[in-house]
Amino acid sequence: MEIFVAKSSGFCFGVKRAINTANKCATENKGGIYTLGPIIHNPQVVKKLESSHIYAKKSVDEISSGTVIIRSHGAKLGEYRAAREKGLNIVDATCPFVKKAQDLVQLLTDEGYAVILVGEKEHPEVKGLVSYGAADIRVVESPDELKDLPRKKKIGIVAQTTVPREKLEAVVSFCLNKASEIKVFNTICNATSIRQEESGELAKKVDLMIIVGGRNSANTRRLAEICKTIQPRTYHIEVADEIDFSWFDGVTRVGITSGASTPDWVVNEVVERISNHA
Amino acid sequence: MEIFVAKSSGFCFGVKRAINTANKCATENKGGIYTLGPIIHNPQVVKKLESSHIYAKKSVDEISSGTVIIRSHGAKLGEYRAAREKGLNIVDATCPFVKKAQDLVQLLTDEGYAVILVGEKEHPEVKGLVSYGAADIRVVESPDELKDLPRKKKIGIVAQTTVPREKLEAVVSFCLNKASEIKVFNTICNATSIRQEESGELAKKVDLMIIVGGRNSANTRRLAEICKTIQPRTYHIEVADEIDFSWFDGVTRVGITSGASTPDWVVNEVVERISNHA
Repeated sequence: MEIFVAKSSGFCFGVKRAINTANKCATENKGGIYTLGPIIHNPQVVKKLESSHIYAKKSVDEISSGTVIIRSHGAKLGEYRAAREKGLNIVDATCPFVKKAQDLVQLLTDEGYAVILVGEKEHPEVKGLVSYGAADIRVVESPDELKDLPRKKKIGIVAQTTVPREKLEAVVSFCLNKASEIKVFNTICNATSIRQEESGELAKKVDLMIIVGGRNSANTRRLAEICKTIQPRTYHIEVADEIDFSWFDGVTRVGITSGASTPDWVVNEVVERISNHA
Repeated sequence: MEIFVAKSSGFCFGVKRAINTANKCATENKGGIYTLGPIIHNPQVVKKLESSHIYAKKSVDEISSGTVIIRSHGAKLGEYRAAREKGLNIVDATCPFVKKAQDLVQLLTDEGYAVILVGEKEHPEVKGLVSYGAADIRVVESPDELKDLPRKKKIGIVAQTTVPREKLEAVVSFCLNKASEIKVFNTICNATSIRQEESGELAKKVDLMIIVGGRNSANTRRLAEICKTIQPRTYHIEVADEIDFSWFDGVTRVGITSGASTPDWVVNEVVERISNHA
């Protein structure tokens, strides 16, 4: 039996970089090490960091000394300030794509644009981005939320890095009627769409697809949906233990992919388990 | 019988201004007066100017001395240069909205944007706009024409002033995937859409609609189409002589509107003819 793992499977660049940064801190630092919020929304990863004495804290208030790691989603400007005032050692693991988007929110604000951010209000990345704008920055997911927007001289538009492209397009089209000048920075990271495309391609070539990742992970569930429409023998699992080898009857080619928040070791365990069986 | 004339009927602001400018020239100047191309695409107006000794010429080459009037559509940069070199007196009647679009093509070019102009390649306004850009400026009416566009650092987008908004939106959406920075100036003049909306509203309130304007005028024909779907008793005429009073049986309210290139005096003759009959 042949096993194919999607090239884009596993952590995205920004998540990988943040976890590497945290691990580096664990080997270098002697004081307490904390992440501002869980480093990613994956309890296994958070638990693993705890074994390296890196603990997630909700806010700078909960940290009295030592190192604070800014997670890949970034942080609010006020959180940096609070950490500096406390004399904490700040290690910034903000994803470079998110950092770029933060800089662009600030740039558009400085240039006098009325800034609109396309994304989810409650997402930590968005909360960070908003802090780089002016008080009147708007966060929306669709033009419906902009019906009350008065006409502006110039509008600047930036997107949460993981927002679907159609949402950005819809807001931009709407804003063409709200200002004569529109400056858009397409800050959408294409890792998610590349992962979806690659997983779909893989599903076409195999007899069985295994999607690995948290059932609470929206991007992992979406991968499973996409693959299932192509290869009905698609199974979504969280860990290797869930594999049922009755799925493999008559299978000669297995495809494996995973979400952006799925650690490599979890995927590797799945590959190993299937290899040992085959 | 009541007669209602749409508020937006007749020449648009830019056309009116250009013709007023030409008439002013006729009273002030003593030398020859020429327009670069017909001042608008309406033979009656061109003929009227000829009676004031203002003649349309195809190019600066055909004018040896005197005054050259730049029509509302504007002109190419090279035409200004040629006129200056010949020592002609230049009277610029370019529509201020077109002039603004020319300035913005130049600004985007100076700022290093790859410029895309949404409009009709062969339209005189567009030919003028293009001359303010770099050699690689692209003129397109739909994203289909941009399939070969390589990825750019930043794209600047400007529209012909009379282009339908949907065309601009489609090109902007497409370009969001071709550059991470997009600057759009919505240079579409809303006179056309306002005229269409107002005429449609008027059609709802009357028993008969008369649309006045050249049968070769696309915007006039479009007005007739819109009104006919609302009020089936809609008639498109060029001049008052075409009115057939059998249309008026049982009519108590008549609506009148006209295209952007229809002179007021033609509309006034229509109003007068109907008033005299009523």
